[in-house]
Amino acid sequence: MVKVGNLLGDLPARPLAGEATDVLLKRASVRIERIVSAGQTTPEGKWYDQDADEWVLLVSGAARLRIEGETKDRALEEGGWMLLPAHCRHRVTWTRTEAPTVWLAVHVSN
Amino acid sequence: MVKVGNLLGDLPARPLAGEATDVLLKRASVRIERIVSAGQTTPEGKWYDQDADEWVLLVSGAARLRIEGETKDRALEEGGWMLLPAHCRHRVTWTRTEAPTVWLAVHVSN
Repeated sequence: MVKVGNLLGDLPARPLAGEATDVLLKRASVRIERIVSAGQTTPEGKWYDQDADEWVLLVSGAARLRIEGETKDRALEEGGWMLLPAHCRHRVTWTRTEAPTVWLAVHVSN
Repeated sequence: MVKVGNLLGDLPARPLAGEATDVLLKRASVRIERIVSAGQTTPEGKWYDQDADEWVLLVSGAARLRIEGETKDRALEEGGWMLLPAHCRHRVTWTRTEAPTVWLAVHVSN
């Protein structure tokens, strides 16, 4: 069955207590999510370390990420995407606070 | 290895002879593509009929699609997404001509 939606619609009410994640599609080896953040960052000293590859797109807003072992943050602007291979440790160091930042994440486990 | 890009960058020179497709990620059961169109539509009488599910996002621009058996086109605006199950026959009936329309397509074969 055809399903439709809009990543920029039905944004969660602000202020967000944390990031808000909606699963848009789930298959054996793929999960597509919309993630909405508004100023959230990964807590100091914590790293994401995932079993699956993550292909992430910044749909709206702005963010900065740090990859473990790198000396500078990477900036993501609208339309910017990044492939984070499984177990590539990373943190979100900044997201815009004035308006929500909307991400699309595609988790690929094969 | 981390890879980066921007869906709105390096747009193909216009006028496009046809849609321009870049494969961004390819795995056993998933293929992520950027598709750029500028006025292209599916030729009259032709339908896309795909073996894989396609999750498609309109990143920039505007488009209309027709699902076989429906009596009206469906409009896609920026941020709009659609899950087209395998063998759901569909056509692109219109894309904006003034500026490129950028799609993200995630083909999922399981």
